[in-house]
Amino acid sequence: MKRAIVTFTTDFGLSDGYVAQMKGAVLKQAPAAVLVDVTHLIGAQDVLAGSVVLERAIAAFPRGTIHIAVVDPGVGTDRRILIVEINGQRVICPDNGLITWAWRMNLGAKAHALTWRPRESSATFHGRDIMAPVAGMLAKGKAVRSLAKRIGDPILLEVAASDRKGRIIYVDHFGNAITNIRLQGGGDCSVLVKKKSVGLLRQTYADVAKGETVALIGSSGLVEIAVRDGSAAEMLGLKVGDEVALLNS
Amino acid sequence: MKRAIVTFTTDFGLSDGYVAQMKGAVLKQAPAAVLVDVTHLIGAQDVLAGSVVLERAIAAFPRGTIHIAVVDPGVGTDRRILIVEINGQRVICPDNGLITWAWRMNLGAKAHALTWRPRESSATFHGRDIMAPVAGMLAKGKAVRSLAKRIGDPILLEVAASDRKGRIIYVDHFGNAITNIRLQGGGDCSVLVKKKSVGLLRQTYADVAKGETVALIGSSGLVEIAVRDGSAAEMLGLKVGDEVALLNS
Amino acid sequence: MKRAIVTFTTDFGLSDGYVAQMKGAVLKQAPAAVLVDVTHLIGAQDVLAGSVVLERAIAAFPRGTIHIAVVDPGVGTDRRILIVEINGQRVICPDNGLITWAWRMNLGAKAHALTWRPRESSATFHGRDIMAPVAGMLAKGKAVRSLAKRIGDPILLEVAASDRKGRIIYVDHFGNAITNIRLQGGGDCSVLVKKKSVGLLRQTYADVAKGETVALIGSSGLVEIAVRDGSAAEMLGLKVGDEVALLNS
Repeated sequence: MKRAIVTFTTDFGLSDGYVAQMKGAVLKQAPAAVLVDVTHLIGAQDVLAGSVVLERAIAAFPRGTIHIAVVDPGVGTDRRILIVEINGQRVICPDNGLITWAWRMNLGAKAHALTWRPRESSATFHGRDIMAPVAGMLAKGKAVRSLAKRIGDPILLEVAASDRKGRIIYVDHFGNAITNIRLQGGGDCSVLVKKKSVGLLRQTYADVAKGETVALIGSSGLVEIAVRDGSAAEMLGLKVGDEVALLNS
Repeated sequence: MKRAIVTFTTDFGLSDGYVAQMKGAVLKQAPAAVLVDVTHLIGAQDVLAGSVVLERAIAAFPRGTIHIAVVDPGVGTDRRILIVEINGQRVICPDNGLITWAWRMNLGAKAHALTWRPRESSATFHGRDIMAPVAGMLAKGKAVRSLAKRIGDPILLEVAASDRKGRIIYVDHFGNAITNIRLQGGGDCSVLVKKKSVGLLRQTYADVAKGETVALIGSSGLVEIAVRDGSAAEMLGLKVGDEVALLNS
Repeated sequence: MKRAIVTFTTDFGLSDGYVAQMKGAVLKQAPAAVLVDVTHLIGAQDVLAGSVVLERAIAAFPRGTIHIAVVDPGVGTDRRILIVEINGQRVICPDNGLITWAWRMNLGAKAHALTWRPRESSATFHGRDIMAPVAGMLAKGKAVRSLAKRIGDPILLEVAASDRKGRIIYVDHFGNAITNIRLQGGGDCSVLVKKKSVGLLRQTYADVAKGETVALIGSSGLVEIAVRDGSAAEMLGLKVGDEVALLNS
């Protein structure tokens, strides 16, 4: 039997067993599914951070993977739940912008609004009661069109890839600050963070001495501000939204 | 081959690899087992919290699932180790009250005291040396009665479901406070927390404004005190043991 | 199909999805692999701690298991990447001492330096771009010698098992302090920690009263300093490097 991969990206934390409850619901539908945690430590209701981490998971997993993403301040309201076909994979998530970064980074994604509903559902845990069973049904081969109808207007946050001028969109736990700048073309560049130069764009951390700031193209393909063996976020006081710019030099 | 699911609920934390050592021991017996973490962040030796989280896992997983739960201040003493048949599943845990909440919520559970012991065991890590191999043996089809003998008196904590007057039994990482009140019958109710009204029993978080307190029936089927987009535990100073009551209104 | 087990030991943390990106890379090569986290909370760049936790994983998992360990301050430099055949298992890790403790505890280990490189790799995430695909290739049956060449000089930290006099090499999240002392032979011993006696070497935590210090042979087979139901690290101010000695008594 084909063993579909199902990944999980949430802000549920790791202490309460809520994620396991979702996994139980997937396994009830699809006992052979391969379950992989992306993270459950997205900041509470931080839809942008969830969106950036989700895009990285989509880039890393093989075709056919199903991703569940739940950062969902609107649970219990009538906000839509999406199934998005993207990069040969499927994402199930609330329609609140969580798909944004993956949508920006992948051409040809198709969004659907879930029409399927379970006979019984709590009003507070749609991740377990709706999204996980849907992932299970997709995992065992059910077609998207039998569960959802095509829509053209998923909610997207106001963030997009830029070329030379951008902003910090994510700070990781090492303190590396990831921007929305995806460099096109070559040539030496110097990098400005909050209007102050941090030097040339480099290849890797080891291109500078320990404790020094380095701007480089990170493993996400995006320009990233780091401090070798240190935290750029702390040492430079960086946070999501701060301006970053590249200048030809 | 049938792939048994084995879940893990412990207070071992996530930093030291102790949980992985248990998983290695399961996989040595049952290489096809599907391993799922419930949580490893139960407070050190907090048997009641472990008990509440374990019950939720049992409710969420399919028949046939095997649950290992280890919150075990008595490791190395002669406290019994249980195999409990419950809701079509099996739980392996020390006999110290950890089974309590699952026992209260499920009729017809049967407790057994483990008679099997390994040839070699550390005196400090029965989770790895005894409980995990037992889970592996059950996963590959060994009968409970070949490993344990039926008992009638598992240790149970003094907590049970109540109808109208109860207490907080668990506080989750969002700050939602879960009570032991399982409401029977309908009709509007107003809810008292530590003798102060928090208003009517509602359906979902979105029934109140952001920052307001809401009492509702949570995803566990139990009455829960929450603050919309906030922490009820923090804002109302709630902790395990605090009184909650429902009044017809 | 044979389902190889692949484990993960890193200092990547749990919040950013980096570990999931590695898992995606393994699954692309070996869709049937069984993925198990050891820990991702090794202290940033704490090679010794990673080494101790990795050795415990090797001891716990069945023959054939593949371990990826990434605590890698030298990423992006030309430090070697190792495949180590050890105890019937394979370890993939940077050549920076991370293999030390497993190397000390297992006779007959063989080290190889990776010669395989991917067509494309980031300069900052070799765990995902090099080590994970290598694990995937080994998992689906590729031979070590087709990916790496035998070497005789893996980098090893200056720590080894000792008999009577040693040091603390790891402190776990309970505050238990694990030493490099592997006792040979029997007889009563008294234990000195930082030159002060903590009493006789015992069997288990319950051999002393709550809150008291106990020295015992822990689940790792090494002498360990603990406080019953408390933190030895906190109460005795213990840290990695502190001296411990055993005296016949």
